[in-house]
Amino acid sequence: MESIRSALERGQIQDAIEALTQLRPADRAEAFSDLDDRDQAAILPRLGISDTADLLEELEDEEAIDVAETLPTGRLADVLDEMEPDEAADILGDLSPERAASALAEMEDRQDVLPLLSHPDETAGGLMTTSFVALPREATTAQAIDFLRGMEPDSETPYYLYVVDAKGRLTGVVGLRDLVVADPAAQLWNIMDEDILYVRSDTDQEDVARTFARYDLAAVPVVGTGRRLEGVITYDDIVDVLEEEATEDVYRLANVSDADLSIHSPISMAIRRRLPWLYLNTLTALFAAWVISHFEALIAQLAVLAVFQSVVAGMGGNAATQSLAITVRALALGDIELRDAWRPLVKEAVTGLIHGIAVGSVVGIGVYLWRGSATLGLVLGLALMGNMLVAEFVGTLVPLVLKALRLDPALASSVVVTAVTDSVGFSLFLGLASLMLRGGSLQP
Amino acid sequence: MESIRSALERGQIQDAIEALTQLRPADRAEAFSDLDDRDQAAILPRLGISDTADLLEELEDEEAIDVAETLPTGRLADVLDEMEPDEAADILGDLSPERAASALAEMEDRQDVLPLLSHPDETAGGLMTTSFVALPREATTAQAIDFLRGMEPDSETPYYLYVVDAKGRLTGVVGLRDLVVADPAAQLWNIMDEDILYVRSDTDQEDVARTFARYDLAAVPVVGTGRRLEGVITYDDIVDVLEEEATEDVYRLANVSDADLSIHSPISMAIRRRLPWLYLNTLTALFAAWVISHFEALIAQLAVLAVFQSVVAGMGGNAATQSLAITVRALALGDIELRDAWRPLVKEAVTGLIHGIAVGSVVGIGVYLWRGSATLGLVLGLALMGNMLVAEFVGTLVPLVLKALRLDPALASSVVVTAVTDSVGFSLFLGLASLMLRGGSLQP
Repeated sequence: MESIRSALERGQIQDAIEALTQLRPADRAEAFSDLDDRDQAAILPRLGISDTADLLEELEDEEAIDVAETLPTGRLADVLDEMEPDEAADILGDLSPERAASALAEMEDRQDVLPLLSHPDETAGGLMTTSFVALPREATTAQAIDFLRGMEPDSETPYYLYVVDAKGRLTGVVGLRDLVVADPAAQLWNIMDEDILYVRSDTDQEDVARTFARYDLAAVPVVGTGRRLEGVITYDDIVDVLEEEATEDVYRLANVSDADLSIHSPISMAIRRRLPWLYLNTLTALFAAWVISHFEALIAQLAVLAVFQSVVAGMGGNAATQSLAITVRALALGDIELRDAWRPLVKEAVTGLIHGIAVGSVVGIGVYLWRGSATLGLVLGLALMGNMLVAEFVGTLVPLVLKALRLDPALASSVVVTAVTDSVGFSLFLGLASLMLRGGSLQP
Repeated sequence: MESIRSALERGQIQDAIEALTQLRPADRAEAFSDLDDRDQAAILPRLGISDTADLLEELEDEEAIDVAETLPTGRLADVLDEMEPDEAADILGDLSPERAASALAEMEDRQDVLPLLSHPDETAGGLMTTSFVALPREATTAQAIDFLRGMEPDSETPYYLYVVDAKGRLTGVVGLRDLVVADPAAQLWNIMDEDILYVRSDTDQEDVARTFARYDLAAVPVVGTGRRLEGVITYDDIVDVLEEEATEDVYRLANVSDADLSIHSPISMAIRRRLPWLYLNTLTALFAAWVISHFEALIAQLAVLAVFQSVVAGMGGNAATQSLAITVRALALGDIELRDAWRPLVKEAVTGLIHGIAVGSVVGIGVYLWRGSATLGLVLGLALMGNMLVAEFVGTLVPLVLKALRLDPALASSVVVTAVTDSVGFSLFLGLASLMLRGGSLQP
């Protein structure tokens, strides 16, 4: 990085490019994106087609588009031809429709990319590449090896050869290792594995990732109607999906609905995209305030209630968040079936009750010692018990219900759960206090 | 599953085993673990060594240990011999030391497993397998292919051959595809790639996963002192690491410190392991209550403050949670360097201020219209503004500080952040109210 910068400062762009191309593609892309716009603009036209293709493949999506926008159409088409078809399709999908159409028109290998453009990003079709090796059942091992020899050496390494029948239907798979050790005269149908796992092109990317993880796959074929082989998804795409889905879960539990947001997003985007959720939170906070407002007269008599009301609501929120995290993660990992949902619901209700007893008794006794009022301690303890029971039950229930409705279990879960734990918490504590006040007094 | 169950009900255990072995290993393990203990105990002794090995490899850790505990030592040793060395080492590491020692003593291939036992679970050494192919530089392509022919066909498919010098030092790598297309007489040092990525055996598994994701690897060699090749980590282990790390992040942000907890954990474990965090939350909630208690006299005069105080504290918590999620995720993905940490800190402070103005003005005006007090609206709006600014700054700062201290950025972040947003929120709102009350009145 130092040598690149100093070469640029001396105006020796060719030296900078040489230093850059000595890096591995991923590091090169990072170094490039760390440069300022002027330096990037100086370097870009002097990079070869193949280096530019590597760069576009490795840059973050937004930056790749920025670079693609600056390339002349003819050059962009050459670069896209050089890229892996799935990466080229991603770029084309993010360009303006006019620019994508004119680049496509000038591409030589557009037939590799066109079938990929019709699939939604988050499906198997959106992840797959059309650069795979499919051979007929009758081909011999020697022919297959010759075919591999004829391929461009830098395409994504194929670990498997797929075997198709005359209609292009997937009928088997041959691992590279089986190919290596097989008799050169053997026909593929003799050495292929017919028990082949595949996904459909409209399968959701999260389900594809689950299949990969479950069966320890390096690649999975994607089929369309009639089991016709359309593409292949490789493990490196799945690693990206897993990271994306994990980010989505963490974000959505924190009410950041937009996984495109990152710590490097422009400030205007950070403000705009998070604000709607904060407004939604505001509504539920004001709803909780409205609940409290019914007890204003009581609080005016006993201001001590205002001191402890938030403990009940807050501890409900904390307990619910734990249940929520465990349930959302179990759903994401496919660890739980909806038909078995009653088990965790019962379990979390019991857990919540016991957590409530544990916390409620300690806080109740502590506050009795602090404030000297046994009634206050009792009300606080009972309210904590009740709210934590409700909290852990609801924290489990809400994501399960969202999943049953085919919505993302993490999305909006915490808004709903907080609304419940706040209003139940305040009502229980202030309601109990109001009842006990009629019978006696909260003051010692 | 149906056919397995019905065969078991009819007492035809052999039929059940046949139905079971027709499933893929992952499905077989799931079906097995769905059976009750009696049926498992009936099936287990009649499974072959190799089927039992598959089962232990695919079962969840806890269940695998349970099964391993029930096997006679001699049989366990045979099963462990049949397993992948890394999986066998995981089982041995979880057994009681005596039982592990006696099983090891009876194993034939213990030299494959022994070097793995000394590495901590969450390091590269704990993930790697010793079942890899390393050949000398001088070997020819034809010799390498012969070597592959001689290997057991069901060991984890090697995609790469590693090339070592006379001292066992890693000097290059040959992809299976390069081997297939190379001249059979070529020596490996002629076709190998010398620019090889590797990790050290003590590298943390999270860093290993980052390396995989960054460079799109299918496998990475693990070296010890002097660059001696000790093992290989394959993508399927990395998929597990990524899922584990994602679970850890989600859990820790929700104050569940223990990633071993799952929705299926026994109730006593769920209660015990989550309770310490709930008690920690209790402490911070009581601290916030203590902050409020300083304003008890004020609240007695103006109970309306008790209605809105939680809005300020709660919205701070919501805003902070968003910042926390984005920062924790950026740190997990290696998207941010500590030396650049001032950027997000400044950005989030500005974002927090603008969010605070946006929410504070709406709530201030809304509450003025609802309660008719302009002063109350103003106090509420200003307190929200201040607290959301603090919240988004602190939500970013805390994980960065934890990272700088080499602690997990997600662990305890939300406890600290909530403590800050609660106490700042209550102090700001009630403090401002107290100041303004001196100047005028909060009532209309």
